[in-house]
Amino acid sequence: MNTSLEKIFSPASIAIVGASETPGKAAERRTRSLLEGGYPGKVFLINPKREKLFGRKAYPSLEAVPEPVDLVMIVIPAPFIPDVITQCVEKQAKGAIIITAGLGETGEEGKKIEAEILENAAKGGVRIIGPNCSGMFSRSARMNLLGVPPIEPGPVAIIAQSGNIIDSLTHYAKVQGIGFSKIISAGNAIGVKFHEYIEYLGEDPDTKVICMYMEGIKEGDKLVAVARRVTRKKPIIALKVGRSGAGARAAASHTGSLAADDKVVQAAFEQAGILRVTNVDVMFDLAECFSKLPLPRGRRVAIMSEGGGDNSVAADNAEAHGLEVPVLSKETQEKIRPFLLKGMPAQNPIDYGGTAEENPHMITECCRVCMETDEVDAVYITGFFGGFKEIIAPHVETLEIQTAKDLTGFVKSYKKPIILHTSFAHEPFESLRILKENGIPVFASSERTAFCLGAMAKAGERILGGKDETSMVREGERNREAAGILSSLKKKGVQNLLETEARAILQAYNISVPRADLVKSAEEAVQAADVMGYPVALKIVSRKIVHKSDVGGVKINVKSADDVRRAFEEVVANALKVAAKDEIEGLLVTPMAKTGQECIIGMTRNPQFGPVVMFGLGGIFVEVLKDVAFRVAPLSPSDAEEMIRQIQGYPLLQGVRGQAPKDTEAIKEILLGISRLAVENPEIQEMDLNPVIVHEKGASIVDARIIM
Amino acid sequence: MNTSLEKIFSPASIAIVGASETPGKAAERRTRSLLEGGYPGKVFLINPKREKLFGRKAYPSLEAVPEPVDLVMIVIPAPFIPDVITQCVEKQAKGAIIITAGLGETGEEGKKIEAEILENAAKGGVRIIGPNCSGMFSRSARMNLLGVPPIEPGPVAIIAQSGNIIDSLTHYAKVQGIGFSKIISAGNAIGVKFHEYIEYLGEDPDTKVICMYMEGIKEGDKLVAVARRVTRKKPIIALKVGRSGAGARAAASHTGSLAADDKVVQAAFEQAGILRVTNVDVMFDLAECFSKLPLPRGRRVAIMSEGGGDNSVAADNAEAHGLEVPVLSKETQEKIRPFLLKGMPAQNPIDYGGTAEENPHMITECCRVCMETDEVDAVYITGFFGGFKEIIAPHVETLEIQTAKDLTGFVKSYKKPIILHTSFAHEPFESLRILKENGIPVFASSERTAFCLGAMAKAGERILGGKDETSMVREGERNREAAGILSSLKKKGVQNLLETEARAILQAYNISVPRADLVKSAEEAVQAADVMGYPVALKIVSRKIVHKSDVGGVKINVKSADDVRRAFEEVVANALKVAAKDEIEGLLVTPMAKTGQECIIGMTRNPQFGPVVMFGLGGIFVEVLKDVAFRVAPLSPSDAEEMIRQIQGYPLLQGVRGQAPKDTEAIKEILLGISRLAVENPEIQEMDLNPVIVHEKGASIVDARIIM
Repeated sequence: MNTSLEKIFSPASIAIVGASETPGKAAERRTRSLLEGGYPGKVFLINPKREKLFGRKAYPSLEAVPEPVDLVMIVIPAPFIPDVITQCVEKQAKGAIIITAGLGETGEEGKKIEAEILENAAKGGVRIIGPNCSGMFSRSARMNLLGVPPIEPGPVAIIAQSGNIIDSLTHYAKVQGIGFSKIISAGNAIGVKFHEYIEYLGEDPDTKVICMYMEGIKEGDKLVAVARRVTRKKPIIALKVGRSGAGARAAASHTGSLAADDKVVQAAFEQAGILRVTNVDVMFDLAECFSKLPLPRGRRVAIMSEGGGDNSVAADNAEAHGLEVPVLSKETQEKIRPFLLKGMPAQNPIDYGGTAEENPHMITECCRVCMETDEVDAVYITGFFGGFKEIIAPHVETLEIQTAKDLTGFVKSYKKPIILHTSFAHEPFESLRILKENGIPVFASSERTAFCLGAMAKAGERILGGKDETSMVREGERNREAAGILSSLKKKGVQNLLETEARAILQAYNISVPRADLVKSAEEAVQAADVMGYPVALKIVSRKIVHKSDVGGVKINVKSADDVRRAFEEVVANALKVAAKDEIEGLLVTPMAKTGQECIIGMTRNPQFGPVVMFGLGGIFVEVLKDVAFRVAPLSPSDAEEMIRQIQGYPLLQGVRGQAPKDTEAIKEILLGISRLAVENPEIQEMDLNPVIVHEKGASIVDARIIM
Repeated sequence: MNTSLEKIFSPASIAIVGASETPGKAAERRTRSLLEGGYPGKVFLINPKREKLFGRKAYPSLEAVPEPVDLVMIVIPAPFIPDVITQCVEKQAKGAIIITAGLGETGEEGKKIEAEILENAAKGGVRIIGPNCSGMFSRSARMNLLGVPPIEPGPVAIIAQSGNIIDSLTHYAKVQGIGFSKIISAGNAIGVKFHEYIEYLGEDPDTKVICMYMEGIKEGDKLVAVARRVTRKKPIIALKVGRSGAGARAAASHTGSLAADDKVVQAAFEQAGILRVTNVDVMFDLAECFSKLPLPRGRRVAIMSEGGGDNSVAADNAEAHGLEVPVLSKETQEKIRPFLLKGMPAQNPIDYGGTAEENPHMITECCRVCMETDEVDAVYITGFFGGFKEIIAPHVETLEIQTAKDLTGFVKSYKKPIILHTSFAHEPFESLRILKENGIPVFASSERTAFCLGAMAKAGERILGGKDETSMVREGERNREAAGILSSLKKKGVQNLLETEARAILQAYNISVPRADLVKSAEEAVQAADVMGYPVALKIVSRKIVHKSDVGGVKINVKSADDVRRAFEEVVANALKVAAKDEIEGLLVTPMAKTGQECIIGMTRNPQFGPVVMFGLGGIFVEVLKDVAFRVAPLSPSDAEEMIRQIQGYPLLQGVRGQAPKDTEAIKEILLGISRLAVENPEIQEMDLNPVIVHEKGASIVDARIIM
């Protein structure tokens, strides 16, 4: 548990610096929402120009408050904030929420003030929330510092970088009858980071589901590490903008967030079990599902409606969102058939025909069978339930109401989720109200229904499925051999490691590389080749030459002693065009790798996520098709497996066109080794194993580049 | 214009066979909706058990009606329908709408009745609508045969296979204030097909946008041909189910529709300019946009809101849906800036900051600039307009109302579309009502807003852009040479053509194939090779051997006269293992093709669409990555170009990794030739040009298979 945040979410006292009574002003709205929200602790209002505010004593400064203050909210112009932070330290405040905008997001001047704020805060352990944020809500503390109308208590927590997104969400929530445990507006997030909030909310007993709206990502590696633990217990839904160039541009001008490679963001979220959404309304519909419904134990969904058209659309939606629509067993179909018109399909989708419009009770009966059978994990009702009374006759309403009650009873007793899609979702009908208020979401969009069931199935697998990931790579002590090599090279100012050095480092991590002998003369080369057996490859080793092939520094498939001699001389001659004699360390002689599938394994340091490991097949797969998988280090074994399986070209590793399957275990071992190497050796900026030839048994790292 | 449907949509008289007064029954609802809908023509109600119905004379049979009848609606049990159809012929009816379900969709018995219906109808040119349909609405005829509450007149036409989809749509329409020109429930569509309705609606002056809900596709080639013309004038939106296995299963049990290869469906729709949607609500939102808004002249959208968060989300949505979010010119930004808070971004997205909530007039001003500049084709407003009065203070409502009026004025005078996304979309606020009723759609989903603008931009390009496709392939007279070869082979009962025959047919269509000589002896082979130059390939020619390589019937890269002799003997020896001596026609000797990019061009006959042409790169691209493009024949030149550009591996044809670009014109010529060949020669079931090697100049068809 992140205890440093405890007092921030449950402060015994709050001071508002810049409190105001002018209606509609940011400070006024927040002071009012705090006072009217029933916050039980002490509140100190600070405004040097006023004696009284809201009928209370106003203090001229934070210093003037006669006792310690747990939390300080700041709504004053930017230049005055650093001083107030110093006063926060004096008042032993645990946190300061800075509402003021116009700091880091507007340029250098603002960034300087932000740095000062952090510097002053660090002196007393004051955690900074914001700036450029819209406040905070904590249900347990009855604290509404958002300046919005009263917020219903409930199980949803939100961390958002944008204030207006929070305004939207609290409005959606009111309409949908959703309540909140915590709402955090993170703003520029210069102090407390997303992963710290997540860690706290992961342990928060009031929070059942965590929603995030993110513009930028800071310390993404920690975010992944924390989230992958938390998502084993409760779902995290994230809306991260910047999928497009224009989106990244908008985010940058809004909270000063740096653009991140969205492919890496996507990979990191998958790795961490974070459910990604693209829009606010979707996020909220999903949050509603998680807060109201039990998790499904699998992906098998039963679809039913009074119309074959809606059923067909729903079935397509379901499969598009990763659900299965299994044909029900003969026995189960037999149990359903008595409730359908003769000849109507009971296989799944279930079509009770137009008769349900007159007698909605048959929905109850079909649903009951699906609740009882273990062939179904969730029920997806589509059509226009609730509106039968409009389409058929008003008297049907009583029957619809009874059906609504039956269905809510089912969810409670069978612990299986049901979601209703109906084209009447927005109507104020009693049957729909009963469903919504008793735990069954009612959506106007069939696709949304499928999306939510699909996301719930994913979360269900992760939380209930108990997929074991305890074998996740644990960082041991740093490997001394590699550390020694790197530190001595660093002292020499080396940036590009020689292949010999790169090989030594890989070997220190038990990443096996093919034999290769460093030779200084043609005769040494021939001796080495004779021992290894032909054909061999010869490669120049020189700190001056990074791209060996480009300067004619590589000869492959050299088949005889004579050829080795010739190749040696040629490579040296080529090398001497770009390097002095004493800049050439020699040549590496290495046996030609057996045939196999060419792959590329790489590592780069990402400004948001730290070391990121990359995998792809060689040649056009990476260069033309951009068919690569990323994961944030450290990798778990299942991360590595997923990376391999995820690429489009994976069938080539499984063995297509009559070829034997390739040794994906060997790839996995290299990926895990590279991950460890990257985590333990922050000096390494980039690694590039290209190509790696994967055989039926084993893999050969044909070339390795490491850059510090 | 499809005149055979004119009298069906505008009948002077209607008979209802099976009319009833029992409330809620299918016939009762439809009779009532017709009588109450103000239909001005004559109505005859047929029911042998009643003297009077709805206070009118009831006739014992259709025969008993004393005058001709234009349109007959039939709601009686299936076995009695064929006889009624015969009576329709006698009454000179132009059409019969069969509501009755339980025919072809339930099995063989129903299919037999359907066949009888068609047979009887053909005797008098009675067009059949349905069966298993829910009726028809025609605005111009004031004819509501759907049994639903009164339908608002408007510019949207719908053709749907599912009755309950129509119920949903008419409900959505009521909520959104959309009206209809025609509503057609096509049911099992055994008589009038979708393409006939489309052709009619394409000319219908009441119809501005055509919506379709489809479960199966019949005569898909005609659908493509008609739709590609109509979509140059008005948009067609289609929801076609069966994207997934479960969806296809549901559709099959609903209207007996056969599963179609969805990749071909998708390609056919793209080719025809049909906008595909996946859900009913999406279809309707898009129909609303087309019916209310002017078409954009391009893809450039300006995004604006009072919050950077909503802007970022919108920008991502926009690019995901094919829109551009251009950075506005300095001049345009200068015009916008006076209306923004200092420092807020005007570049696009435009962020007027929280101030718009207090003064929505700034939205008007920002929008005006975007209307006036030619840098912007459409405006996408996001945030929570309409709800400012809730968030800030009630007095803001007056300002919001004024802004709403300004915006609707803009759309009318500048002829540029504006769509509003607001989280308050479903609230009954005056400002939102003004927008909706005066031509600006208001959506609760930001993504939906982007989707609709993206689809409108596509339609705008097609309708306003005037992309010329008049050069579309015209079927000339059938090629006599090819026809001759095929008919003589058909007489012989040949299924698999010899390569020599396939080559002759290609040549008849001016599709050039590399030189290849048929030889009967090793010496002939050597002579041929000597003339051509080495290396050459040798291939067996035998009707017994379809897969030549599999039996050792091919030798490639044969480099000398001696090698040719050896290869000849070997190929013959291998062939003799599977074919008798007189079943071997000889060997083809052909020069080895120059290097280049390997491609595959194919044609198959699709049960829904007729001849479909396929293009892909060779090897793993087709086999592993399934990277192929389809189009329905006949292809236009731009179809062929799109096929080539559409594959993922296209960069390989453009020339990557230092290679020269390949001759895509040569591929295009082959695709167009294959298209013509397929259209003109229905005997050909399948063609497979594999591989086709595309060079920097020209392409070599290395092997060609044709199957009858």
